Amino acid sequence: LFFPSQPCCIEALLAEAAEPGAPARPCPCPLPSGDTALSRLVRRLLSARRSLDLCLFSFSCPQLARTVQLLHRRGVRVRVVTDAQYMQLHGSQIGRLRHAGIQVRHDQHSGYMHHKFAIVDRRMLITGSLNWTTHAIQSNRENVLVVEDAEYVKAFQDEFERIWEEYNPANYSFF
Amino acid sequence: LFFPSQPCCIEALLAEAAEPGAPARPCPCPLPSGDTALSRLVRRLLSARRSLDLCLFSFSCPQLARTVQLLHRRGVRVRVVTDAQYMQLHGSQIGRLRHAGIQVRHDQHSGYMHHKFAIVDRRMLITGSLNWTTHAIQSNRENVLVVEDAEYVKAFQDEFERIWEEYNPANYSFF
Repeated sequence: LFFPSQPCCIEALLAEAAEPGAPARPCPCPLPSGDTALSRLVRRLLSARRSLDLCLFSFSCPQLARTVQLLHRRGVRVRVVTDAQYMQLHGSQIGRLRHAGIQVRHDQHSGYMHHKFAIVDRRMLITGSLNWTTHAIQSNRENVLVVEDAEYVKAFQDEFERIWEEYNPANYSFF
Repeated sequence: LFFPSQPCCIEALLAEAAEPGAPARPCPCPLPSGDTALSRLVRRLLSARRSLDLCLFSFSCPQLARTVQLLHRRGVRVRVVTDAQYMQLHGSQIGRLRHAGIQVRHDQHSGYMHHKFAIVDRRMLITGSLNWTTHAIQSNRENVLVVEDAEYVKAFQDEFERIWEEYNPANYSFF
């Protein structure tokens, strides 16, 4: 998937995922709801049934935060690893995810946690240059690869588990 | 490849690429020259025989700039696409590449040219979260995928050619 993406409405996608088969209610917003790089990314995420592991430098896009919250409500096990400095920036969605009860861990180093990948059901890797910000989605030249090759997925899943353990709050030393 | 990478000396790699078979001269620097994520990245780049297409948001790592210059001197056709704002930052290697005679094009938009990929000989795609900066290489959690699957390589090669044409200086409107 290549970005920038046209701005688009994902309400129909979220509604269908929340209540499959329910009659579609048209969204009053003026955005088109066609097929875009963003809607394709959202569809991939919404395919999660058991787990979603996110490893994201910057996460400030409300549309993607709503997608993740919906999966959490649907019983998908969501884990988020992020960067300690960027999670504090204005507009970050990390607080919102934590309020929703989603587990979030972060680094405690001066180096950045600069990954931008997601793993769906331990079988689909979504990775690239894209930070999950509205500006990046709508304005930047970005790429996102969707890979189901087991070798790549395992390498990134292993990296996720390493980071998840390293960033265990029991290891935090800044208290 | 996952980063951060241990700092390492790539002089032996560059010397071997510049003069294959020449007797190795030990480098006086104190860095180890073992196998690291950085040295593996350099090896992949040095495998270029005909072309190297770079599409990089930020390029300030002198070791990688020397690698690219060596390929250019060896007759590999190097093309660089980068971000207009980040190429002006202190430490950027873009000016050095231009002085060496390497073709560089950049955006003229407010959005970032945020890709971080390289294509070697139109057959190997190197892409991920890693900006080509020493800080990212040595301090950040980063990933770089090396993919030879023709479908992925073609998608990124097409994206490169699109951007290369769009950023043709003949189209610049800021003069």
